Amino acid sequence: MTSLSHTATQSDIRALSSQHGSKKKRFNIGVLGAGRIGRMHMQNVLRNRKMSLTWVVEDSPEASSALREDFLLQDTPFYSSGDLPRLLSDDSLDAVLIFTSTPSHASLTCQALESGKAVFVEKPAGETREEIRQCFEASEKANRPFLIGFNRRFDPTMSEAHRRVSSGDVGKLQYLRFTTRDSPKPSYDFLKSCDTTGCNILADLSVHDVDQLVWLTQSERPEHIYVTTHAHDATMAEFKEADAIGVMIKYPSGIIASLDGFRESVYGYDIRMEIFGSDGVVMANNPRETSVTFDRADGGRENRLHYSFPQRFEESFRAELGHFVDCLEGKATPLIKKEESLLVAEIIDKGLESFQKKAPVYF
Amino acid sequence: MTSLSHTATQSDIRALSSQHGSKKKRFNIGVLGAGRIGRMHMQNVLRNRKMSLTWVVEDSPEASSALREDFLLQDTPFYSSGDLPRLLSDDSLDAVLIFTSTPSHASLTCQALESGKAVFVEKPAGETREEIRQCFEASEKANRPFLIGFNRRFDPTMSEAHRRVSSGDVGKLQYLRFTTRDSPKPSYDFLKSCDTTGCNILADLSVHDVDQLVWLTQSERPEHIYVTTHAHDATMAEFKEADAIGVMIKYPSGIIASLDGFRESVYGYDIRMEIFGSDGVVMANNPRETSVTFDRADGGRENRLHYSFPQRFEESFRAELGHFVDCLEGKATPLIKKEESLLVAEIIDKGLESFQKKAPVYF
Amino acid sequence: MTSLSHTATQSDIRALSSQHGSKKKRFNIGVLGAGRIGRMHMQNVLRNRKMSLTWVVEDSPEASSALREDFLLQDTPFYSSGDLPRLLSDDSLDAVLIFTSTPSHASLTCQALESGKAVFVEKPAGETREEIRQCFEASEKANRPFLIGFNRRFDPTMSEAHRRVSSGDVGKLQYLRFTTRDSPKPSYDFLKSCDTTGCNILADLSVHDVDQLVWLTQSERPEHIYVTTHAHDATMAEFKEADAIGVMIKYPSGIIASLDGFRESVYGYDIRMEIFGSDGVVMANNPRETSVTFDRADGGRENRLHYSFPQRFEESFRAELGHFVDCLEGKATPLIKKEESLLVAEIIDKGLESFQKKAPVYF
Amino acid sequence: MTSLSHTATQSDIRALSSQHGSKKKRFNIGVLGAGRIGRMHMQNVLRNRKMSLTWVVEDSPEASSALREDFLLQDTPFYSSGDLPRLLSDDSLDAVLIFTSTPSHASLTCQALESGKAVFVEKPAGETREEIRQCFEASEKANRPFLIGFNRRFDPTMSEAHRRVSSGDVGKLQYLRFTTRDSPKPSYDFLKSCDTTGCNILADLSVHDVDQLVWLTQSERPEHIYVTTHAHDATMAEFKEADAIGVMIKYPSGIIASLDGFRESVYGYDIRMEIFGSDGVVMANNPRETSVTFDRADGGRENRLHYSFPQRFEESFRAELGHFVDCLEGKATPLIKKEESLLVAEIIDKGLESFQKKAPVYF
Repeated sequence: MTSLSHTATQSDIRALSSQHGSKKKRFNIGVLGAGRIGRMHMQNVLRNRKMSLTWVVEDSPEASSALREDFLLQDTPFYSSGDLPRLLSDDSLDAVLIFTSTPSHASLTCQALESGKAVFVEKPAGETREEIRQCFEASEKANRPFLIGFNRRFDPTMSEAHRRVSSGDVGKLQYLRFTTRDSPKPSYDFLKSCDTTGCNILADLSVHDVDQLVWLTQSERPEHIYVTTHAHDATMAEFKEADAIGVMIKYPSGIIASLDGFRESVYGYDIRMEIFGSDGVVMANNPRETSVTFDRADGGRENRLHYSFPQRFEESFRAELGHFVDCLEGKATPLIKKEESLLVAEIIDKGLESFQKKAPVYF
Repeated sequence: MTSLSHTATQSDIRALSSQHGSKKKRFNIGVLGAGRIGRMHMQNVLRNRKMSLTWVVEDSPEASSALREDFLLQDTPFYSSGDLPRLLSDDSLDAVLIFTSTPSHASLTCQALESGKAVFVEKPAGETREEIRQCFEASEKANRPFLIGFNRRFDPTMSEAHRRVSSGDVGKLQYLRFTTRDSPKPSYDFLKSCDTTGCNILADLSVHDVDQLVWLTQSERPEHIYVTTHAHDATMAEFKEADAIGVMIKYPSGIIASLDGFRESVYGYDIRMEIFGSDGVVMANNPRETSVTFDRADGGRENRLHYSFPQRFEESFRAELGHFVDCLEGKATPLIKKEESLLVAEIIDKGLESFQKKAPVYF
Repeated sequence: MTSLSHTATQSDIRALSSQHGSKKKRFNIGVLGAGRIGRMHMQNVLRNRKMSLTWVVEDSPEASSALREDFLLQDTPFYSSGDLPRLLSDDSLDAVLIFTSTPSHASLTCQALESGKAVFVEKPAGETREEIRQCFEASEKANRPFLIGFNRRFDPTMSEAHRRVSSGDVGKLQYLRFTTRDSPKPSYDFLKSCDTTGCNILADLSVHDVDQLVWLTQSERPEHIYVTTHAHDATMAEFKEADAIGVMIKYPSGIIASLDGFRESVYGYDIRMEIFGSDGVVMANNPRETSVTFDRADGGRENRLHYSFPQRFEESFRAELGHFVDCLEGKATPLIKKEESLLVAEIIDKGLESFQKKAPVYF
Repeated sequence: MTSLSHTATQSDIRALSSQHGSKKKRFNIGVLGAGRIGRMHMQNVLRNRKMSLTWVVEDSPEASSALREDFLLQDTPFYSSGDLPRLLSDDSLDAVLIFTSTPSHASLTCQALESGKAVFVEKPAGETREEIRQCFEASEKANRPFLIGFNRRFDPTMSEAHRRVSSGDVGKLQYLRFTTRDSPKPSYDFLKSCDTTGCNILADLSVHDVDQLVWLTQSERPEHIYVTTHAHDATMAEFKEADAIGVMIKYPSGIIASLDGFRESVYGYDIRMEIFGSDGVVMANNPRETSVTFDRADGGRENRLHYSFPQRFEESFRAELGHFVDCLEGKATPLIKKEESLLVAEIIDKGLESFQKKAPVYF
C-alpha cells in the first residue's frame, strides 16, 4: 500500500497556514443572545478554532431552539438570563459575547467585566455616553479586554482605505464621504423598536459611518454638524421616522464630511467611503457577488452588489472575532478606543439636536 | 435585569440564516493526508457544522504534529496508514476525504468506496484513465457518492460564468480562453515530484482549465489539440520541464479554445476564463485583495490579485465540501461526472502527445 | 494604371458617415474673445465643416497674434471691439460666439441678438438673474437661437446619466451627488478676478453641478440650501476666498442633493455625478487617459484621470457647437432653457446667502 | 462698452494650447480615393490645421459627389486618375494620402514618392513583400517620408501599453495575447473582394495584431506559427472563407503569442492586447461608449463597447495624421519601419502556409 505522505515540503506547508498561529489555548466562550445579530456571529464563533462555545443564554425558547437546530448545537447547553450570575462565576470561562438588544448592552457588559470576563459587545455599547464610559471604566478596572463591534473597521477594504490615510498617502484630509444604504429594508417592527427620535436612522444606521469618520480623523473634534432628513416610505412617514438622511460635518482643520444614509437600496447593500486629500483620493468601493462581466448587444452586465451585511461583511465579522482572540491572547489591544467611542456618541447627539433645530449645531 | 431577548422577528432571523438547512445529522469524517492540500481543506472540514472530524491518517509524524498544533486538534485521534483497514470497517464512519499524494488516490478511493464510505478525493482521481474509470465504477457498485476536487467549478465567479453559458445567454460558443498563472512559484522539490514528462505543467496546472473547458462544452469531443511550451527558469530548463505552456484546441462544432499556463506570476494568482459566442462574451475576471482604489498625481492604484489559491479559492473550497455534504444528504449528485473526468484525462493525454510530436494531434 | 475606385459599396460608405448630414450650408461665424476659453472653442469652430470662421474680435494684440499663429489663421481678419457694430450689421453673418470675460456677456449677447444674429455664449450668460432674463427675452424677440455654454450637458457620459434618469430607470429620485475638483489649480490672478464674495467657488466652479442638478430634477424648486466652505491654501485664506465647498440642498419631493467643490485636485480633473432613486443608482464616473491596466508585485496601476477640462470635455465642447449648428439649421431648439438658467442663478444666490448667514436658507 | 479682453494670463493661454506648435506652414495635400477608408480619414484631414486639402482624385462619380456633399467640399477640385501625373508634377504639392483599394497601393505609392511627394498609405502598403520593399526603397531614394497606416500604434491605450513594455516595466516577455473581433460584420461583398485564400481573415483582419506583435517584440523573428480556423456563418462556409481564426506563435526567446480573430462581434468592436512578462502584466482593454454605471435589483449595467473602428480609433486616426505632419515638418521619422513591415508580411505568409498545411510552419 502506498505510504500516505505528502509531496510538499514542511516549509511549504507551514507557510500556507500562517493564519494559524502556534498558541495552543482554546478560550471558553459564553454567548448572550441568539437573535438576528447573535446568529450572524455564531457561525464565526463555531469556526474559530481558538474559541470553544461553552454555553448560550437566551430567554426566548423559539430563538434557542432555532439556533440549536440550525447550527447543530445539540451538545451545547442553553440557559436563560436567570442563570447568568452563576455562569459568570465560572473561573474557566474566558469571555462573554453580548448580542442582546441595545438597552441591555451596558449593564451586561459591566456585569461580565466585573466578573473578570473579557467582553465583546455588538455596537452600541450603551444608549448614552455615560453608559459607554462606564463600560470602558469597568474594563480598565477589571483589566480585561473590552471590544465594541464596529465591524467595518475589520473589513479588508475599509481597513486598507484607513491604512492609506494613516500612512499619509492622501496628504492633508479635505473631504470625507460616507454612503450607507441598507438592503433589504428592515421590517417595520425593527424600525419601530429603535429609539423613536424621528431620526433613529442616524444612531442606528449612520453610526457605523460616524465611527469610521472618527477613526479616519484621529478623533478630531468637529466644529459643527448639519442634518437633514426625509421619509419617502408612507409607513415611515406615518411613524414620523426618517428613512433618508444627509449629514454635513465641518472640522476646525477644514475637513468637510458628507454622509448619506437610506433605509432601502433595491440594488444591494451599498457601503462606501471616499477620502480626498491634498495628495490624492482613496475610495473604498463595493465588491460584487462575483467578478463576472457579460457583454452583449445592448451593453455590459455585472452581478449585483451583495444582498446584505452578512454577505458583504462576512470577512470583517470573522476578523473582528479574530481580533478579540488576539486581545485575549495579549497580542493586541482592542482597536476601538474609549475616546473614539465617546466622540462617536457625541456626534450622534449633536446630529439629533441639529435634526430637531433644523439648524447647524456647534461643538 | 433586562430580558435577554432580541428585537428582530423570528422570520427575520430564519431568513438571514437560510444557508443553514434543517437537516440534523452531522457526518463522521475521516481524513487521509495532512500535507499542503490536506491542511488547506482542514479548516473547511472544521468549519462545516455538518461534518464531524473523526480521525486523521498521516504517516509523517511531523505533518501530524504540525496539523494537530496549528488546528488545535488535541482531541482528534491521529493514525497511520496501517490502521486504515480497521478504521474503514467502522460502520459509524460516513465518508473519507483523500488528500494524499496523487499516486495513492485511485487505490485509496476504491478501498474506501468498497468499504461503503462516500469519498471526496483531491484531483486527479487517478494517474490514468483506467484508474479514474475504476473509481467511478467502485462508486456505482457501492452506490456511494464519489466527488473529485475540481474546486473551481464551485467558485462563485466561475460557476456564474458557466451559468451564463449553459442558460444560452452567450449563444453558440466560438472561442474559449483560459488563463492559469501560478503564484507563488512552487518549490523545485514539488515541481520535480510531478511526473517528469517535460510537460507536467499540463497535467498538474492546466488540468483545472481543461476541466472547465469540458464542463463548458458539455463534453464535446475535440477535433485536435496543439501544444507548445518553454522553460524560462534556468533550473526548470535544466530539469527539461516547461514552466510556460500554450494550448490550442479545435472542436468539430467550430469552437477554438486557447489556454495559457505559467508556473510563476509575480503579481498574484491569475486565473481567468473568457467565453465568446454568437450573442456575447462572458469573462470570469480576477477578484482583488480589496476593492480600494487610490488616485494620485502619477495615476491610479489598486490592491494586488490574491496571493495564491487558498486566498483566491477560499469560497470554492468551502462550497465544494458543502456540495459533498449535499451529496451525503441525498440532496445532490456529484457535479463532476465520469464522462467528463475521462474526457479531461484524454485531452491531457493527447496534449502530451502533441508536446512530444511537436504537431497537432487528432482525436 | 489601376482604377482609383474603392471596394466597399455605396451603402457601406454612407452608413459609416452618418454623422455628416445632407444640409449644404456653411454658417458664417464671428468670434468675440481669444482668451483661455475662446482658444479652447476655436479648434472646434475650425473643425466643424458647417461653420466658416468669418472674423475674430479681440482687443489684446498679444492674444490676437497668439491665436493667429497657433491656429494658422493668417487668412482670418482680426478686429477690435470698436468694429463690432459694423461687423454685426453684415447680413451674411449668421451667428456670434461670445468668449469674452463674464461682465460683458449679457450686453454683447443682447447686442448680437438685436442685430439678428444667433448667439452662443460661454456660461454664465449674465452676472445677475436680470441680465440672464434679458438675454432670453432678446432671443425671443429676435427669434434667433440663443445657447449658453453649459457644456457638460453634451458630454456622452453626463447625457447618458441624464437619459437613464429621465427615462424613469432610476425610479423616484432620492439622492443626487455632484463632485467638481479642478485641475490644475487656476492662477491666483484668475481666482482674484472672479467676483470676491468669499465664496466665488460656488458661482464659478460649482455652477456646472447646479446646472446638472436643475436639469436632472426638471427644475424642481428647492426647499432649502446649506453651504459650508474652507480655504486650505494660505494665499486663498489671505484673500478670504474659499477653495473648498460643501453644499446640501433639500427638495420638497424629498430629494437631498450634496455637492462638493475643490479648487485643486492633484490627481486630475475629477467630475462625477451619482443619482440614487427608488429603483437603482446611476453613476457618471471619470474616464481615464487610457484603458490600460498594469499589474505587478505591489499592485495594479491605471493611468491618471484627464489633466483638465479641455481633455476631459473635448467631446462635449465639440457636441455643444454641433448642437448650436443644429439650432441654426432649425433641427433643434437650444437645450438650456430660460427657466432652468434662472433657477440655476437663484440657487447660486441662495447659496451665497447661506454662506454669509452660516445657516440654511429657504426658497 | 466693455473691453473685449480676457481674464486669464498669457501663460495660462499658451499652456492650454500646447498641442498647437509654432510652425507656421500648412501643407498642401492631395487625396487619392474617396471610399470607406478615405472618408474616414477625410474628417481628420479637414480638421488638421496644418493640412490644406488641395484636391481629391476619385474615379467613381457617386463616391465623389457623396464626399463633396457630406463634407461640404464645394470649393475643392475633384479629379480622376487620368489627371494624376499632371497633379503630381505640381511643385507646391507636399504630400499624397492614398486610400484606394489594396492592389493599387504599391504602384501609387512609388509613383508619388518618385514625384518627390511624401506619402501616407492605408495598410497594407503592398500585396507582397516585394511590393512593400519597393515602397520603402522609393522613399529612401526620394528622401521623402513614407508612412503606412497601422493606426493602432497611435491609439493612446495601445501606445501606452507599448510604452510599458519598451520601458522594461513588464520584464522579460513571456506571453502576448491579441484579440480582434470586428463589428459590425462587413458585407459579403467586401469579404468576397479580399483575396480568396480561405484565410483572408488573417491578412485583412489580424494583420493589425501582427503589426503590434512585431512592434512589441522589437521584430524578433518567430520560431514557428500555427493557425486554425472555422467558418461559422453559412455564407462564409459556402465561400470557403473562415470567419474565425486562432493563431499561436512561438519565439526563440520563449515568447508564446496567441491571436484570436472573428468577423462578427455582436457586443461591439473588441480589440485588446495583453502582455505578460517576468515582472507583471499589461492589458490594453476596451474603452466603452460612456463611463456610466447603472445598478438595479438585477445587477449592474454599463454602456456598450464602441460600435466600430471609426468610433474606437477616432483618436488614433487623428494622431496618425498628426504624426505624418510631424514627419513632413522633420520633427519625426515614420514610426512604421521597413524591417517591421517586411516581418509582418512574412508572418502573414507563414500563417497562410500553416493554414494550408494544417501544421506548424517554421521560420
